[in-house]
Amino acid sequence: MGMDIIYETYEKIKSMEIRGAGRIGRAAAKALRDYAKSITDIDDNEFKNKMIDAGNILKSARPTAVSLPNAIKYVLNGLNDKNPKEAVIKKAEEFIISSSNATKKIGEIGSNRIKDGYRILTHCNSEAALNVIKTAHRNGKHIKVICTETRPRNQGYLTAKDLANEGIDTTLIVDSAVRYFIKEVDLVVVGADAITSNGCLVNKIGTSQIALIAHERRVPFLTAAETYKFHPKTIVGELIEIEERSSDEIHVFEEQYINKIKLRNPAFDITPAQYIDGIITEIGVIPPQGAWYIIEKYFGELFNE
Amino acid sequence: MGMDIIYETYEKIKSMEIRGAGRIGRAAAKALRDYAKSITDIDDNEFKNKMIDAGNILKSARPTAVSLPNAIKYVLNGLNDKNPKEAVIKKAEEFIISSSNATKKIGEIGSNRIKDGYRILTHCNSEAALNVIKTAHRNGKHIKVICTETRPRNQGYLTAKDLANEGIDTTLIVDSAVRYFIKEVDLVVVGADAITSNGCLVNKIGTSQIALIAHERRVPFLTAAETYKFHPKTIVGELIEIEERSSDEIHVFEEQYINKIKLRNPAFDITPAQYIDGIITEIGVIPPQGAWYIIEKYFGELFNE
Amino acid sequence: MGMDIIYETYEKIKSMEIRGAGRIGRAAAKALRDYAKSITDIDDNEFKNKMIDAGNILKSARPTAVSLPNAIKYVLNGLNDKNPKEAVIKKAEEFIISSSNATKKIGEIGSNRIKDGYRILTHCNSEAALNVIKTAHRNGKHIKVICTETRPRNQGYLTAKDLANEGIDTTLIVDSAVRYFIKEVDLVVVGADAITSNGCLVNKIGTSQIALIAHERRVPFLTAAETYKFHPKTIVGELIEIEERSSDEIHVFEEQYINKIKLRNPAFDITPAQYIDGIITEIGVIPPQGAWYIIEKYFGELFNE
Amino acid sequence: MGMDIIYETYEKIKSMEIRGAGRIGRAAAKALRDYAKSITDIDDNEFKNKMIDAGNILKSARPTAVSLPNAIKYVLNGLNDKNPKEAVIKKAEEFIISSSNATKKIGEIGSNRIKDGYRILTHCNSEAALNVIKTAHRNGKHIKVICTETRPRNQGYLTAKDLANEGIDTTLIVDSAVRYFIKEVDLVVVGADAITSNGCLVNKIGTSQIALIAHERRVPFLTAAETYKFHPKTIVGELIEIEERSSDEIHVFEEQYINKIKLRNPAFDITPAQYIDGIITEIGVIPPQGAWYIIEKYFGELFNE
Amino acid sequence: MGMDIIYETYEKIKSMEIRGAGRIGRAAAKALRDYAKSITDIDDNEFKNKMIDAGNILKSARPTAVSLPNAIKYVLNGLNDKNPKEAVIKKAEEFIISSSNATKKIGEIGSNRIKDGYRILTHCNSEAALNVIKTAHRNGKHIKVICTETRPRNQGYLTAKDLANEGIDTTLIVDSAVRYFIKEVDLVVVGADAITSNGCLVNKIGTSQIALIAHERRVPFLTAAETYKFHPKTIVGELIEIEERSSDEIHVFEEQYINKIKLRNPAFDITPAQYIDGIITEIGVIPPQGAWYIIEKYFGELFNE
Amino acid sequence: MGMDIIYETYEKIKSMEIRGAGRIGRAAAKALRDYAKSITDIDDNEFKNKMIDAGNILKSARPTAVSLPNAIKYVLNGLNDKNPKEAVIKKAEEFIISSSNATKKIGEIGSNRIKDGYRILTHCNSEAALNVIKTAHRNGKHIKVICTETRPRNQGYLTAKDLANEGIDTTLIVDSAVRYFIKEVDLVVVGADAITSNGCLVNKIGTSQIALIAHERRVPFLTAAETYKFHPKTIVGELIEIEERSSDEIHVFEEQYINKIKLRNPAFDITPAQYIDGIITEIGVIPPQGAWYIIEKYFGELFNE
Repeated sequence: MGMDIIYETYEKIKSMEIRGAGRIGRAAAKALRDYAKSITDIDDNEFKNKMIDAGNILKSARPTAVSLPNAIKYVLNGLNDKNPKEAVIKKAEEFIISSSNATKKIGEIGSNRIKDGYRILTHCNSEAALNVIKTAHRNGKHIKVICTETRPRNQGYLTAKDLANEGIDTTLIVDSAVRYFIKEVDLVVVGADAITSNGCLVNKIGTSQIALIAHERRVPFLTAAETYKFHPKTIVGELIEIEERSSDEIHVFEEQYINKIKLRNPAFDITPAQYIDGIITEIGVIPPQGAWYIIEKYFGELFNE
Repeated sequence: MGMDIIYETYEKIKSMEIRGAGRIGRAAAKALRDYAKSITDIDDNEFKNKMIDAGNILKSARPTAVSLPNAIKYVLNGLNDKNPKEAVIKKAEEFIISSSNATKKIGEIGSNRIKDGYRILTHCNSEAALNVIKTAHRNGKHIKVICTETRPRNQGYLTAKDLANEGIDTTLIVDSAVRYFIKEVDLVVVGADAITSNGCLVNKIGTSQIALIAHERRVPFLTAAETYKFHPKTIVGELIEIEERSSDEIHVFEEQYINKIKLRNPAFDITPAQYIDGIITEIGVIPPQGAWYIIEKYFGELFNE
Repeated sequence: MGMDIIYETYEKIKSMEIRGAGRIGRAAAKALRDYAKSITDIDDNEFKNKMIDAGNILKSARPTAVSLPNAIKYVLNGLNDKNPKEAVIKKAEEFIISSSNATKKIGEIGSNRIKDGYRILTHCNSEAALNVIKTAHRNGKHIKVICTETRPRNQGYLTAKDLANEGIDTTLIVDSAVRYFIKEVDLVVVGADAITSNGCLVNKIGTSQIALIAHERRVPFLTAAETYKFHPKTIVGELIEIEERSSDEIHVFEEQYINKIKLRNPAFDITPAQYIDGIITEIGVIPPQGAWYIIEKYFGELFNE
Repeated sequence: MGMDIIYETYEKIKSMEIRGAGRIGRAAAKALRDYAKSITDIDDNEFKNKMIDAGNILKSARPTAVSLPNAIKYVLNGLNDKNPKEAVIKKAEEFIISSSNATKKIGEIGSNRIKDGYRILTHCNSEAALNVIKTAHRNGKHIKVICTETRPRNQGYLTAKDLANEGIDTTLIVDSAVRYFIKEVDLVVVGADAITSNGCLVNKIGTSQIALIAHERRVPFLTAAETYKFHPKTIVGELIEIEERSSDEIHVFEEQYINKIKLRNPAFDITPAQYIDGIITEIGVIPPQGAWYIIEKYFGELFNE
Repeated sequence: MGMDIIYETYEKIKSMEIRGAGRIGRAAAKALRDYAKSITDIDDNEFKNKMIDAGNILKSARPTAVSLPNAIKYVLNGLNDKNPKEAVIKKAEEFIISSSNATKKIGEIGSNRIKDGYRILTHCNSEAALNVIKTAHRNGKHIKVICTETRPRNQGYLTAKDLANEGIDTTLIVDSAVRYFIKEVDLVVVGADAITSNGCLVNKIGTSQIALIAHERRVPFLTAAETYKFHPKTIVGELIEIEERSSDEIHVFEEQYINKIKLRNPAFDITPAQYIDGIITEIGVIPPQGAWYIIEKYFGELFNE
Repeated sequence: MGMDIIYETYEKIKSMEIRGAGRIGRAAAKALRDYAKSITDIDDNEFKNKMIDAGNILKSARPTAVSLPNAIKYVLNGLNDKNPKEAVIKKAEEFIISSSNATKKIGEIGSNRIKDGYRILTHCNSEAALNVIKTAHRNGKHIKVICTETRPRNQGYLTAKDLANEGIDTTLIVDSAVRYFIKEVDLVVVGADAITSNGCLVNKIGTSQIALIAHERRVPFLTAAETYKFHPKTIVGELIEIEERSSDEIHVFEEQYINKIKLRNPAFDITPAQYIDGIITEIGVIPPQGAWYIIEKYFGELFNE
C-alpha cells in the first residue's frame, strides 16, 4: 500500500474520474489519511517529509481546482502538531466531514437571512445558493424568486425548474432585465467559483453587474461559498485567470461572417468586495474582508510559504 | 379633397400601412400641409379651428407613437403666426425635410465625438447609433466596436453583421459580459425609443444597466435620438408605460412547467439623466437636462396645453 | 385714484393684512393693473417710468417674500411691448389667474406621477404637495402615505389629520425614522419655500436629509412649487438667508440650564439640485437645472437687471 | 449551595432586578464562578456538563440581552483548558473586571481621537459615547458638542444637561437639523445597542441617517461599544429584530383619529459598516469589518456551534 | 475704406498684435461695426452677404480663440432683424460694452457668493476668479485664501503676490496638498479657458482634480467665465483639443536621460459638469447644464448652422 | 557588556547615525538579542524585567519611528514563552532576517499583480513600490510607468531616472496631471510611511488625491508596506501627527512678501482605507481592514497594553 493510495487518487483526479470541487478535496484528504495510517515506524521528521511529498504529488493533479490545495493544506497543518500522525489523520477526518456537510450547512445558515415575504434574485445555477433559498422555503417562509436566464449556457432554466419543482414562486427574466426588476428584490444570493484573499468573488459572467445594480439600490448581495472555495494564493484580486470558453456557446454566424465577427466568451467575472454584503460559508456569514483570515486559519500558514 | 387627406392618412397610420417613427411623423405633416393648402376663402380663426380638428383626428390614429403628436405640434405651431396658413405650410415642409435628414445628421454630429482609435460599445440595433459609428469609420477613424447579443430578440446579431459588412472590427458578447469588457471601452453609444422631458432615456431592455456600468468607470455614455423622439408629455419620468412582450421571445418551457414558471419580458427600461453624458440630436449634442427645452421650443407650448 | 391704489396695497402687504405667497403676489398684480388703467393721456415713456416707480414701491413692502417681486416683474415685462399699457394689464390678469389656479394645477400634474399602489412619504405640511397626494387619491389610486412629525412645530400632525380626513391610509413617524422606512417608499413629495436659480430647494428643516436618504436608495424625490416661488436673484445657491426661529419652539430648559445649553432652530435647509428628480410646477414638471430658465422666461430679464 | 446560585441569578435577571447590559453579564459570570467553585470531587467531563447546563439555564433568563450569552461564552471557553475548573474561575474574574472597566477604558481610548478645538455631534444618551467626550474635555481639550433632541423620548435633553454640568460648550438641535449643521462638525460619536458580526451598528432610531449624512461630507463617524455588545450570532446583518415601542411615545391623537392614523415607533435602526469609520471598544479602535474576529476571539468558537 | 477695416483687423489678430480673449472679440466687433457703417446704398440681402463674408474672413484669423467666432456671431445675429444694418451696429456696440465690463461684473456677482469668514481656494491665476475674491475683500468681508503653486509654470506665485498686495490673508501650497487642506475650505473659485456646450470646464491642468476633491467633501466649486468663453461648437465635451506644451516647462533632465524619460505637459484638463456647482458669468450664475442655452441665446442659431 | 549594548544602540539611533525604518528596527533587535545573550544566571522574572527595561530605553531613542517599537515588541513577545531567553533570541533573529528580506519579498509578491502590457502610475520614490515595478519588468513583463514630479522635493526625478536606468518605458508628469492621465493607467502602486490600525495609509503629500482619482475610475490602488511600518497604536486613523516641513522647500518669496504670504508644507497626507485595494506586505497582499490583525499578530498584545 503506502504511496499507491496517493498515485491512485492522483490519477483519478487528473483523469477527471473524480470531479466537483467538494469531491476532489475529499478524495485528496482520504488519500492523505490512508497514507498517513500506512506509515509506521519512522520518526516525525521523516513522516513530515513523506506527507509533504504526497501532498505535492496530489496538488499537481489539477492545478486550477482550488479545493485540491485547500484540502491538502488543511490536512497537512496537522504536521505542526506534536503528534503529527494523529493530527493529520484527525484533520483529514475533519475535512471530509465538514466539506460533505458544507453545502447543506450553508443552506441552513443562509436561510436565516431570509425573512418571510422576501423576493430573492439569483443568477446561474449554484447548489449552495439554491440551498439557501430552498431551506428558507422548506422552513415555511413565503418567498418569491427571480432567476436570470444566464447566457450563454442558460443555466437559469435549470434553476427555474428546480425551484418550481420545490413549489417556489418562480419568475425567469433575461440577464438584461435585472435593473428593471431590482426595485422588487429584497436580497440577491449567488454562488461562487472562488473567493480571493481580498474578498473578491469569482463567479459566472454577469455576477459583477448584478452586484453593481444591487449596490446602486442598497439591496443586500450575498454569495454562498464553501470554505474550500477560498483561493489560497495571496496574489489574487483581479488577477485570477478568467477562462474563455468556446464562442459556439453564444452563436454560430453564417459562413461569411465567421472570420469577420469575433465572439468573446469569458466564463466568469470578478465582483469587488465593496459590492458584497457577506459571504455565507458553512462556518458562518463573514464580511468579504475576512476572507484572507479564513484562508490563513483553515488552509493555514498563508504568510510563510 | 379637404378632410379626405386627413382621413386617408389617419387610416394608413392606424392600419400600420405607414410605420416607423420618422415616416409616421412625415405622413401627418404632409397631410396637414395638403389640407391647409386646400382650405381657401375663410378667415384665420376658422382656419385655425379646422387645422386643430385635423390635428386631433390624426393624433388619435396611434396614441403611443411619440413622433405623431410631435409632428402635429410642430406644424400647428404655425397657427400662432400672423399668416397662419403660410406658416403652417412652411412648418410642415420644415418638419418633412429635417426629419428625413435627421438620422443622417446625427451620424455626422455624433461621429465628431469619436476619436481615432476609440473602442465603442453599442446595444441593440439602432439606426441612429450605428450611423454615428459608421460615419466615424467612413471618415477614416480606426475604431473597434463591441456589440451585445441583446436578448431576447438578439438584435445584436444584426448589428454585428451590419458593422462587419462595413469592414469595422466587430466583437459580439453576451449581455452579461458588459462589465467585464467595459475597461476596454472608450465610449458607449445607443439609440432611443423616447426621451422624457426630464432627460431620461427609454430604450431597449438592458440599456440602463449598461449606462450604470459605464458611469461606474466614467466611460462617456451617449444616446442618439432624433428630436421627434422627445416625449412631449410633462408627466413623464419613470412613469412612461413599458411594454411587456410575449414570454415566448425568451423561452418556451416544457408543458409541465408552463404554469409553474412565470416569464417576464419588458421590452424597454429607463436610464436616468444622471448616467447620460449627452443626447446626440440632429440639431446638436445637448445635456439630458436640456430635453424639456427642446420639447418646448420645437413641439411648443408645452406648458400651456 | 392713481397712486393711491399702490400705496393702499403697499400698506396692506406691509402690515401683513395681506399674507401668503400667492395672495401677496396677486394683490400686487391687481394694484399694478388698476394703476395702469387709471393712467391716461401720457406717452409711453412716461407710462413706463410711472409703472416702474409703482413697482419699486410695492416691492419694498416685504423684501423677503419671493412672490412679490416675481408678480411685479411678471406684470412689468409688459412694458417691453409696443403697447405697454395694454400689455401690462393683460399680464396682470394672466398672473392673477394663473397664480390662483397654480396649486390646484400642481395637484393635477403631480398626481400623474403617482401609480396605483404607491407608498408616498411627505414632510411638513405643504398645500401643494398634499394636493398632489390628494388628487391621486381622488382619482381612485390606492396609495399609502407616511408623514413625518416635523419637529419642532409638529406640522406633521396637521398633515396626518388632513390625509386621514380624506380617507387616505396614513402613518406618522418621527423625523429620525425616515431611513428606517425608506425601503417601503416609492416616491417622496414635499413642498417648497423657494427654488433657487441653480435648482436648489429651500424648504422646512429636515428636507435635505430626507432627499439624501431617498437618493441613497434611488427613490424619486419631487418638490411641488408654484412658479412664483422661484427666487429671481442670481446670487442664490447656498447663500439664501436661513431664518433662525425662537429656541422655545424646541424646548425650554430648567432655569439653571438656560445660559448653559444653546438651542439652535433654523427653520429651513437647502436641498442640492442633484438630489431632486423634478420640480412640479403649475406649468409642468421640470428638472431642477431648468429653474433659472423659468425665472428668466416668466419673471424676465434676469440677466440684464 | 451549588445550583442555587445559578437559579437565584436566573431569577434576578429574569425579573429585571438585575438590569443593564454590563450588570447582567457580570451577574452571570459571578454565578458561574461561584458555582464552579462549589463543585468538587468530580471528573472533568462531569464538570463540563454541569457548567454547560448552568450556562444554558442562565442564558434562557433574558434571550434578547446580548451581554448575557457573551458573558457565559467568555467564561465557558475555559472549559477547553486542561484545568477547566481553574480556567473557568479565572475567565469569570477576567470578565468581571474587564467589563467593569470597559466603559471607562472606552472613554480613554476614544478621547485620543479628539483633537483640541473639535466640534463633536452625538445622538441619544450613551454612557460610553459621553465618556469619550467628557474624557477629552477633562484632558483639557477645548471642544464643542452638538446633541440631537432624539425623538420620541428626547434623551438628548439628558445628554445636553450632563454635558453642560461638565462645563462643556453644548448646543441642542432637532433631529432634522443634523445635515444643516454637519459642516461645522469634526467628528460624530454615538453609542451602540449591539454590533453585528459583519460590522453593522444597531443603535437608537436616527443613528443610521446621521451616519449617512456624516459619510456624505466625509466627517468621521465612530461608535463606542463595549465588547460584550458584539452580537455572537452569525445570522445577523439586517436581520436583527428591531423592537417597536408604544406609539404613545410619539403622540396621542384625538379620539376621532386614533383608528385612522397609524403611528410606527421602531426604537432602533441599523447603520451599515460602510458608514462607520471605527468601533471604539475597551480593547482598542477596530474597523467594523473586524467585529466578527472580536466575537470569535472573545466569545469564541463562533464557527463550530 | 470698407473691407480694409476687416483686413486690417484680420492681420492684427493673426499676427497676435491684438491678443487676449476679450480684446480679440472686441476688435472683431469694432471692425464689423465700422464696416457696416461704411456700407451704403445697397439692399438688405446684399448687405447680409457682405457682412457674412466679412465675418468669415475675421473668423479665419485665429481659429482656436473661442471669443472670436463668438463676437462675430453675436454681432451678425443682427442680420435677422428687419433693419439689419442698424441692428448689426447696435449689437456690435452691445458686445463691446458688455465684454469690456464682463470681468468686473463677474467680480461683483461672484462676490455675493462669498460670506464673511469664508476660506477660499483658487488655482492658477485667473483675472475673473481673482476679481470675485478681491471684490469680496473690498466689500469688507474677512476672507482667507489658499492658492496652489500651479506647476509647471507656477502662476500661483503671481496669484499669491496679487492677493497679498490687496491685504488678503494668503497661503500658498503645492498642488499635491489640496486634499490635505480641503477640510478648511468653504468655496473653490477658478477661472476658465473655455466652457463646453454640455457644461464642462476647460481650464489649467489640475483643475479637474481639485473639482473632484471639492466634490468628495461637498465644498462648492465655482468657475468664473465671461460668456465669450462659451464654446459654440456642438461637438465639444471631452473632445476639445488639449494643447500640449514644451516639456522644458517641467524639467530638463541631464543629457543621458533626455531620450529615455518622456515628459508630458498638457496645459489644460476637463472638469465634468457634475463637479461644477455654478458658472459665474457677467449675466448671472448659471448651472453648467445651462451652458448650451447661453450659447444659443447669445451667439445664436446654434442648431441651424 | 550587558546594558552597554543597549545604550550604544540607543545613542546611534538618537543621533541618527543609524537611519531608515528597516535599519533602525534591526539595530534594536540586534541589541536586544545580544543583551539577552549576555544575561545569565537569573530567574525568568528578573530576565523579563531587564528586557522590558532595555526595550523601553531603546524605544525612547526616536519616538516617531514606527519600526522601532515594532521591532522591540516583536522581539519581546518572546517573553511570554516558557523559555523566554531562547524565545527572545529566536524572535530577534527572525525579525532581523525577515525585515532584511521584506522589501525584496514585496517586490516579488507585488509583481504578480502586474500583467503584461500594464501601464502603472507611481508617486514619490518608494523602494518597495519601485521593487514591485522593477521585478515585473525583470520578469519580462512589458510595462510602462508614469511617475509624478512629487513637489516640493521632486523625488519623482529620482524615480524616473531609476526606472529609465532599468530600461523601463518611463514618463514624468506634474502632480496636477494625474487625473488627465488616469484613463491610461491600469494600476497605481505607491509606498508607505505608516499604515494605521484601521487600514489608512500615511504617505507622501499628494498620495490621497491620487487614490481618490484612481477610485473615481476604479483603477486598482496598491500600497507596498513592510509590516514594520504598521503603526501599533490603536488610537490612529486621521489622528497621526503630520510633520510640517520648512516652507523653503516650496519657494522663497521676495523680501517684501515674506511676512505676507504663508507657505504651508505638510510632508504627508492620509489615504482612507476605502480607496486602497490592497496592501502588499512581505507576508502577502491583505485588504486594508486586515491591518489591525497584522499589528496584533506580529507586534502583539495590542489590546492589553
